[in-house]
Amino acid sequence: MTLDEDLADGGPAALRRARAWLSRAVEPGTIDFWRFVDSVGPVMAVRRIRSGQAPDRIRALVGARAEQDESLADLRRAERCGARLVVPEDDEWPALALHALTLAVSEEPQDHANQSDRTLAPVPPLALWVRGPARLDELVDRSVAVVGSRASTAYGEHVAGELGHQLGERSWTVVSGGAYGIDAAAHRGALAADASTLAVLACGVDRPYPAAHGALFHRIAETGLLVSEWPPGCAPLRHRFLVRNRLIAGLTRGTVVVEAAARSGAQATAQRARRLGRQVMVVPGPVTSAMSVGCHELLRDAEAGATLVASAAHVIEAVGGIGSDLADPPERPSSPRDGLSDVATRVLDACPVRTGVSPERLATVAGCDVLDVLRVLPALELADLVEWTGTGWRLAPAEGGTGSERRPRAG
Amino acid sequence: MTLDEDLADGGPAALRRARAWLSRAVEPGTIDFWRFVDSVGPVMAVRRIRSGQAPDRIRALVGARAEQDESLADLRRAERCGARLVVPEDDEWPALALHALTLAVSEEPQDHANQSDRTLAPVPPLALWVRGPARLDELVDRSVAVVGSRASTAYGEHVAGELGHQLGERSWTVVSGGAYGIDAAAHRGALAADASTLAVLACGVDRPYPAAHGALFHRIAETGLLVSEWPPGCAPLRHRFLVRNRLIAGLTRGTVVVEAAARSGAQATAQRARRLGRQVMVVPGPVTSAMSVGCHELLRDAEAGATLVASAAHVIEAVGGIGSDLADPPERPSSPRDGLSDVATRVLDACPVRTGVSPERLATVAGCDVLDVLRVLPALELADLVEWTGTGWRLAPAEGGTGSERRPRAG
Repeated sequence: MTLDEDLADGGPAALRRARAWLSRAVEPGTIDFWRFVDSVGPVMAVRRIRSGQAPDRIRALVGARAEQDESLADLRRAERCGARLVVPEDDEWPALALHALTLAVSEEPQDHANQSDRTLAPVPPLALWVRGPARLDELVDRSVAVVGSRASTAYGEHVAGELGHQLGERSWTVVSGGAYGIDAAAHRGALAADASTLAVLACGVDRPYPAAHGALFHRIAETGLLVSEWPPGCAPLRHRFLVRNRLIAGLTRGTVVVEAAARSGAQATAQRARRLGRQVMVVPGPVTSAMSVGCHELLRDAEAGATLVASAAHVIEAVGGIGSDLADPPERPSSPRDGLSDVATRVLDACPVRTGVSPERLATVAGCDVLDVLRVLPALELADLVEWTGTGWRLAPAEGGTGSERRPRAG
Repeated sequence: MTLDEDLADGGPAALRRARAWLSRAVEPGTIDFWRFVDSVGPVMAVRRIRSGQAPDRIRALVGARAEQDESLADLRRAERCGARLVVPEDDEWPALALHALTLAVSEEPQDHANQSDRTLAPVPPLALWVRGPARLDELVDRSVAVVGSRASTAYGEHVAGELGHQLGERSWTVVSGGAYGIDAAAHRGALAADASTLAVLACGVDRPYPAAHGALFHRIAETGLLVSEWPPGCAPLRHRFLVRNRLIAGLTRGTVVVEAAARSGAQATAQRARRLGRQVMVVPGPVTSAMSVGCHELLRDAEAGATLVASAAHVIEAVGGIGSDLADPPERPSSPRDGLSDVATRVLDACPVRTGVSPERLATVAGCDVLDVLRVLPALELADLVEWTGTGWRLAPAEGGTGSERRPRAG
C-alpha cells in the first residue's frame, strides 16, 4: 500500500505509518517539528508536509525528504529484526515518564531563535523503535539510569556492575546507553541478576553501536529492550548521542553518574535530569582518580542538586516511593525470614525476583547441595516466601516486596 | 615560693601559677568549673577553693585535690622539656579562635543536669601547655584541622599527606591529633613542605602519645607546636581524646575529615566544628572502602553541612578569606612569573615559603644544575620573587601571596 492510501485508511495502521514516516523526516529533538505534529496530529502532519501545505519553517526542516518514503521499508526492516514501532497512541507508550518532557517543551519560547539547541532541547520523542520482549511502559515504570565515562576505570566498572546487579535483584530496571565502560558494566550487572535492562541507542535498533557489544545487545534484547528514536539502519552520528541523552533522563526516575572526567558531559546529563524533576545521584571515588573528578565537581556544585550515593540502597531510597523503598533501617522488623535455618536463608537469597530457576541453579548460587535445596523449598513455599512459576522457583511477591507491585511514579 | 605566697604577689607570675594549679584541679572541659574561674578570676578561684569558700558544686569537683599543689613542679617539668604555659592573659593566647568556644559555653544551661556531657561540652581551655618555638596565636591564625581514622588505608594516608604538604606549602598550619594513620600522615606532609604543624594532645606535652611517634613529635616540636590542656606527666586517658577534640575544632578555621569508618567519631567531630561556626570538609573515597563509609555518611547528611573537598585548593577556598584564597581560576591573571624561562620557573617553584634553603637544595628540588640555579637567582630576586634570609633562599612575601600577610579570620 502506498503511504497516501495507508493514511487515507485513518486507523491505527495509518497512525503508525505516519509516525514511522515522521521519525525519518526530521532529526528527533526538533522543537518546532514536534509542536507541528502535536498540534495537527501525525496523519495530518504527513499529509500537509507532502502536499506542500505545512508552514514554511516545517517545510524548511523537512526539505527534499518530503517527497521520499521509506516508512513501509522501515517498518518491515524493524519486523525482520524482532523490533516494532511504539507510538504515543499505544498503551505501551511510557506516557507518565515522558510527561516531564511534554511539560518542559511547553516552557520553550515560541520564537525559534531563542529555543534550546536541538542537542539539548527537552522535547518528547515522536515515536520509539523498540526491540525486545518487554513492554516499554512496564520496564521504565521503576527504572534508574546508570551512566558514566566510556574511559572508565576498573573501580568504576566494578561499582556500575554492582549497582546494576543490585538494582536488578530488587526489580529496578537499569537504563543506560549501551556504550563502552560504565554503560556496559551497568547493563551486564543487571543481566547477571536475571533482570531486564534497557539500552537507549543513538542509531537503529537493527544495528546497535558499538559493534563490539553485539553479544551484549543480543542479550539485552532477549529479556529487556533496545530503544531508539531513529529508524532501522540509521547510523550513530556524533550529535545523536546528545539528543538521545534526554531520553535516558526522561524515561527514568533518576540518573546515577558513576564516573566522569573533569568538565565532561556529566554536568549536562545531571542538569537535564534535574530540569525534568528527576533525581541526580553521583558515586564518589578516589580523589586521586581523574575519572572521578567530574563526579566530585557535581557533588561540590550546590546548584546541581546532586546526592551522593554509595550503594544500590542509597539509589532506591532516592528514587523509590516514600515509605516503600527506604534503605534498610539499622534494626529490621521481624519477618517470616526470622528463624530460618542457615541453608534456608541462603536458598531464599539465591531465588531470583522474576524468572524462576531450577533447584540445581539455586544450589549453585546458594553454595549448597541440591538435596538441601529440595529439602528446604517446601517449607519456604509454605511460608509464602518462594513460588513455583511452572518452569522454576522464584521469590514470592510478598517477599519481593517493593519489587512486585506497581507504584505511582515519584515526580 | 609556696602557692599562697606566689598568689599574694598578684602579678603575671601569680596568674600563671594559679592557672597551672587549676589545670590539674579539675579535668578540662568542665563547664561549671570554667564558669567559676571566669567569674572570679584565676587567682581568686584558687584561693577560694583552697580556703573552702568555693560553692559546693566546685568543691565537689575538686575534692581532695584542693589540698595538693604540684603547680610549681609542673611549671618546672614543662621548662625542662622546652615547654611553657600559655594563659588567656598572654598576648600569645589564641583569643580570636577560641572566642567561638566562649560563645558556645554561654549558651549552655546553668543547670548542671542539662549541660552537655563533659566529653562533648564546648568550653574554652583554662590554660594551654605548649612545647615548640612557634607563637601559638600566629600558628593557628591560618590553620586547618586534618583528621581521620587511625586504621587508615594507603589511599587515606596518601591524600592526608598530600593535603598536609600542599597546605603547608601555602602557609596554612595543619592541626591534628598526632595519632596513628590520618593524623600522622597530615603532620608528616606538612613537615615535608618545611611548614610548621601543630599537634593537640590528650596527655602531657613531655610524654606525647603514642610513644612510637616519638620522632614525629620531636620534629613537630622543632618548628611547630605540641599543645595540651593537661599538665606535664598526665596520661592519655580514653575520655581525654574526646575532650581534646573540641580544641582541634576550636583552634582551626575548618576541619577536613579524610577517612572515617561507619558510625565513627567523624560525625561528632563534624558536628562540633559546625556548632563552632567552622567549615566541615570531607574527602570522599572509593565506595568499596570501609574507611570511606563515614565520610560518605557525612556528605549524604544534609544537616552536617559538609563540603566535599578533593584537593588543598578546595580546602583553602572553603576556609580562606573571600576574594583572597579562591581556588585557581581557569585563566590566571598575568603576573611577574609570566615570561620566566623554564629553569627560572622550576627554581621559583622549588623555593620554600618560610625557611630559606641553599642553592644546592634548590637544584635538587628543581631538578637542574646548581650553576643554573645561581644563574637565575639574581633575576628572580630583582623581580621580587625570591629573597635571601641570611641563611638561604625563600619565596618573597609578594610571591607567597596569601601566605605572607595576616588576614581577618573568617567566621
